[in-house]
Amino acid sequence: MTVSEVKESKCDVLIIGAGPAGLMLAAWMARCGINARIVDKRSTKIFSGQADGLQMRSLEIFDSFGFCDRAWKEANHMIEICMWNPGSDGIIRRSDRIPDVPVGLSRFTQIVLHQGRIERFFLDHIRKHSKDQIQVERGVLPEEISFDEDALSNHDKDTYPVSVKLRHLSDEEATPAQQLNHEITNGKANGGEKGPRDGLFRSNLAEDDTDELLGKAREKENTVEIVKAKYVVGCDGAHSWTRRQLGFELEGEKTDFIWGVLDIIPLTDFPDIRMRCAVHSASSGSLMVIPRENKLVRLYIQLTEIKPDSVTGRADRSQITPATIIAAAQKIIAPYTLTYEYCDWWTAYQIGQRVGTNFDHKNRVFLAGDAVHTHSPKAGQGMNVSMQDAYNLGWKLGLVVNGIAKPDILKTYQSERRRIAQDLIDFDHKFSRLFSGRPAKDVMDEEGVSMTEFREAFVKGNLFASGLSVDYGASILVAKPGDPATKGDGTDLTPIKEKDENRILGNQDLATNIKIGMRFPSYKVLNQSDARPWHFQERLKSDGRFRIIIFAGNVLSTDQKTRLDQFCASLSSSTLLSPHLHSHIALLAVHSAKRADTELLRDFPDVLHPWSEREGWDYESVFVDDESYHEGYGDAYTGYGVQRDTGCVVVTRPDQYVGYVGPLDGEGWKGVEGYFGGVLRV
Amino acid sequence: MTVSEVKESKCDVLIIGAGPAGLMLAAWMARCGINARIVDKRSTKIFSGQADGLQMRSLEIFDSFGFCDRAWKEANHMIEICMWNPGSDGIIRRSDRIPDVPVGLSRFTQIVLHQGRIERFFLDHIRKHSKDQIQVERGVLPEEISFDEDALSNHDKDTYPVSVKLRHLSDEEATPAQQLNHEITNGKANGGEKGPRDGLFRSNLAEDDTDELLGKAREKENTVEIVKAKYVVGCDGAHSWTRRQLGFELEGEKTDFIWGVLDIIPLTDFPDIRMRCAVHSASSGSLMVIPRENKLVRLYIQLTEIKPDSVTGRADRSQITPATIIAAAQKIIAPYTLTYEYCDWWTAYQIGQRVGTNFDHKNRVFLAGDAVHTHSPKAGQGMNVSMQDAYNLGWKLGLVVNGIAKPDILKTYQSERRRIAQDLIDFDHKFSRLFSGRPAKDVMDEEGVSMTEFREAFVKGNLFASGLSVDYGASILVAKPGDPATKGDGTDLTPIKEKDENRILGNQDLATNIKIGMRFPSYKVLNQSDARPWHFQERLKSDGRFRIIIFAGNVLSTDQKTRLDQFCASLSSSTLLSPHLHSHIALLAVHSAKRADTELLRDFPDVLHPWSEREGWDYESVFVDDESYHEGYGDAYTGYGVQRDTGCVVVTRPDQYVGYVGPLDGEGWKGVEGYFGGVLRV
Repeated sequence: MTVSEVKESKCDVLIIGAGPAGLMLAAWMARCGINARIVDKRSTKIFSGQADGLQMRSLEIFDSFGFCDRAWKEANHMIEICMWNPGSDGIIRRSDRIPDVPVGLSRFTQIVLHQGRIERFFLDHIRKHSKDQIQVERGVLPEEISFDEDALSNHDKDTYPVSVKLRHLSDEEATPAQQLNHEITNGKANGGEKGPRDGLFRSNLAEDDTDELLGKAREKENTVEIVKAKYVVGCDGAHSWTRRQLGFELEGEKTDFIWGVLDIIPLTDFPDIRMRCAVHSASSGSLMVIPRENKLVRLYIQLTEIKPDSVTGRADRSQITPATIIAAAQKIIAPYTLTYEYCDWWTAYQIGQRVGTNFDHKNRVFLAGDAVHTHSPKAGQGMNVSMQDAYNLGWKLGLVVNGIAKPDILKTYQSERRRIAQDLIDFDHKFSRLFSGRPAKDVMDEEGVSMTEFREAFVKGNLFASGLSVDYGASILVAKPGDPATKGDGTDLTPIKEKDENRILGNQDLATNIKIGMRFPSYKVLNQSDARPWHFQERLKSDGRFRIIIFAGNVLSTDQKTRLDQFCASLSSSTLLSPHLHSHIALLAVHSAKRADTELLRDFPDVLHPWSEREGWDYESVFVDDESYHEGYGDAYTGYGVQRDTGCVVVTRPDQYVGYVGPLDGEGWKGVEGYFGGVLRV
Repeated sequence: MTVSEVKESKCDVLIIGAGPAGLMLAAWMARCGINARIVDKRSTKIFSGQADGLQMRSLEIFDSFGFCDRAWKEANHMIEICMWNPGSDGIIRRSDRIPDVPVGLSRFTQIVLHQGRIERFFLDHIRKHSKDQIQVERGVLPEEISFDEDALSNHDKDTYPVSVKLRHLSDEEATPAQQLNHEITNGKANGGEKGPRDGLFRSNLAEDDTDELLGKAREKENTVEIVKAKYVVGCDGAHSWTRRQLGFELEGEKTDFIWGVLDIIPLTDFPDIRMRCAVHSASSGSLMVIPRENKLVRLYIQLTEIKPDSVTGRADRSQITPATIIAAAQKIIAPYTLTYEYCDWWTAYQIGQRVGTNFDHKNRVFLAGDAVHTHSPKAGQGMNVSMQDAYNLGWKLGLVVNGIAKPDILKTYQSERRRIAQDLIDFDHKFSRLFSGRPAKDVMDEEGVSMTEFREAFVKGNLFASGLSVDYGASILVAKPGDPATKGDGTDLTPIKEKDENRILGNQDLATNIKIGMRFPSYKVLNQSDARPWHFQERLKSDGRFRIIIFAGNVLSTDQKTRLDQFCASLSSSTLLSPHLHSHIALLAVHSAKRADTELLRDFPDVLHPWSEREGWDYESVFVDDESYHEGYGDAYTGYGVQRDTGCVVVTRPDQYVGYVGPLDGEGWKGVEGYFGGVLRV
């Protein structure tokens, strides 16, 4: 086939890599109705091993897509962390118990489930919402990327300034050779079972195999195509091909700490094997216990006897086997016994923290997930932060491609997420050193790690690790004071400047617990029309819509009713509810009068319960902060820090982060209009 | 084909009818590993209309099979009942609000979802657990039933004393002709949509069509087969062919009250259209509002202008159309407006209450569901009681077929369920008259219905309607005092006699809220080993197993620990845990010491956490009544009414009903052994 015969096609968004980040992005594409493709060089999704921890924020996000219940049902729920430290006799003892996640922050807790299942939930969701239009194309490798430089800043509907050459691999080429290991059953034969899968080929101890795969595939000339795209997103992991093409670096450092990972069904008398445990032995290293679904337990085991090569800085992977890893674990956990008959998966890694220099190229190519941050896996952050990168980017791309939002919002991706990556790397740097260090013998032992300090770091780290402390800086999308550059990662977020008199700023005092820049928190409220209790956050679905949330206050007060009516009159007559924009802006209200004293049709303006010729009045947008029969009292106004009498208005972004808070009056209306004026193509 | 060529096959259990009762029975067959078949004369499952209400007990049962979450997510949740009555001016007003179900009885509330979805959940469950072995065979009609009388009492493995001739229908024959109606859109054209399905062919206003279908099918000689079965269950509805073959009657009476049913998306200004409402107009009859999923509302509408024929006692169905039904509703609900664009389904019925004279024939053929009780649908009982009939019967059949339980337990089916059917008919008799009666003008108006009495009946009826007040009488399966015959429906339950000195009797005082004969209630407890909170009832899965539930009390007291150890020693050495029986008897324990002060492996006998060579210790059977981090304190011992120090032992049947309560000592052990001695083939 000659070059002129190479197949050429167009798509709005091309996603490279179908791990959790790529799939999250594809989920948004499906929900926003975008013509997107997603390719992955591997021939199959993974079936064992890899990431497993799902933090609370990730579960809230899953819930907003509608599949959290599947994860919640299948997963193991981690409730408590037990700390085990050596006593003065050198023998480990349980020194402390703390809740696995901070109490009261979310309706979810941390759960653990194999990454392959999570990918399955995404795949089902993408299929359903794209009506089978978006499906992962496996065994497909990107080979060249090029740009039509003149067209990069042209956001017309028909401009596709990025070209990617894709090569289709054979099944064989796309399946990595896994290390065969015959010591998997701890010395015993394993009864005809297939051996455990090893994950070294994805570990940072393995060489990147992209070039090798590419070399093999080049021989098949008939398997090449050119895709013209508006946007490309590289979710292609730590060895990101996309990142290398753009010439961006991962900056950071590697340590000498090497850890092994075993997914086994443990045979042990260690009493806390079904708890998350941090075990520091006196001098044999540390171990972390992560209890998993289906009786599995994941063990992170420090391999103190394996040292990196002094020249390459890299450990010799041939020294690492399940047998050497379990032997290290046995030393750490002694005097308790630990062995196994069944091993599901194993790997090893060298601790290091690195973050990408750039997360985007001219707002046309974006990087997400491991492509721009790598760190140690023990804190259960990797998959979560990666999915949340894509969760941040997806709706922005969707709204820009659909011509609804200004392309300026794309700049906030790097500003918001690179800052999070930096925070994550700092967290992991501190956390992994505390974890890998030898426990201090006493307060004079300065080389050792203080177990008190470790406990405090763990408790503090739990808030960070929950994903709920994310606080995005000022931008076009976050109407709060401060310098957009320094509150993010330094990215210039023009047109928003720190000292701009016309800048829209929210009033945080009106909703002290609905922090501008943070995710909208959840309290229970009741549907006004059927009295059903809901976590209010459940009503903020990931459907690509901004939300104007009206805290209507006490609608039975004449003054407040007048304020509400006037605000809703402004809303009704505004272009925000024009057919062009209304499907991208939803309305919700929650009031503070008694449910039984109020009626939807009588006490609330029509705009809050619009009429349809076929379906009559809408009953799904007005809620009340009142007692339920069966689920207690949410006391939402108190929880949100909003005045019960006068209320306020809140704008949330499609990702549930708070964009604006203002009063329920003319000033607040000006704020809402100004906010959307900055963001949308009105 | 000659008679000798008729295909002959064998199965353990043949189920006739694949509505909710038949599917529930098939679910048990799948869970118990029984060779069963299920046939239905209709060619498809239903897609609209029919039953919709799911009471709390049904949801607990769904949860025990593992699919309650699907129903809970899709359904509409009914929270409140609003009563609307005429004032002295004759105009209807909201007179009261009460919770839809009693508060605090269950972790579920009442929900409403189309019967077709519920059948879907069952079909998926049956398929999964029978590994595709049990699938509904549609378009199959039973034609003859015969018995090998000599073999009826022979419970050998290879005896199949019941023969049923089945005829396979063509698709056309198996699809009922639905009434076409062109007035469905209230006078307007309905935009090319398919008209609503009418349900009259299943209503009690329709003639039975079994004979007609049979006549048509007889022409196809090649579609007959003979099934030899151990047991046959007729779940074939109000016109039950099976019941007719056995010569059993439905006894009861018909009223003159005719009601219509509409499933519509209402266009209305009635303020409580998303609440369950009971509306009594001054003189135009009554109406019930049942808000449904997908914006649908079901309206039950009294048709006061339609009278039954004075000769046949039956109403003329040709008079009844969606237009006449909505017109009746409009009169009742005035001055509010009510109309619709979209109608999903409609039907009509004449109120009557009838109950079967017999629920079984020689413990070989059983009847369940509408085949043995019919009544008015408004209380949302039909589908629930029918499913619960089959839920009661299924595990008994399963254990007898598998040779585990004595055939004597089959007698308890009629004793337990016919009594429930009688109670249901009494309830419906009273309830439907209160509902269909004209409201009393004042206390002197003796012909009218007192609205105070109506409200009280509603509140009391809610407990009955929840399904949670079911209290089975004394029997081989329910070790409590009383006359087995009079506490049931009169069935002779020999070998259990009222005055028998050797009879096993539980001690209710040891667990005042775990009533022998009622379903095991649920409180939150924590898993001892991972601190996860569970509703204890969630651990009582419908897997065909009895459970010995040990309330271990305060295991940190030496005396109590000794009692526990001795009881567990008896258990360990008993034949109940022999390989033959152990897979049918599970153990659970819940103790009352502090979780953090106790350890599974140290403080509890091995029998409560058995060891496996491949999976190590078991961590899934021992729970603790202690505070959780995130979900409060279940205070289970208080809830169950069990002494925190000394505990007790409870036996539950595979259907979660309580069989025995005794002390945690030698006497209690004798009780447990005696209970199982009566029930199982030891």
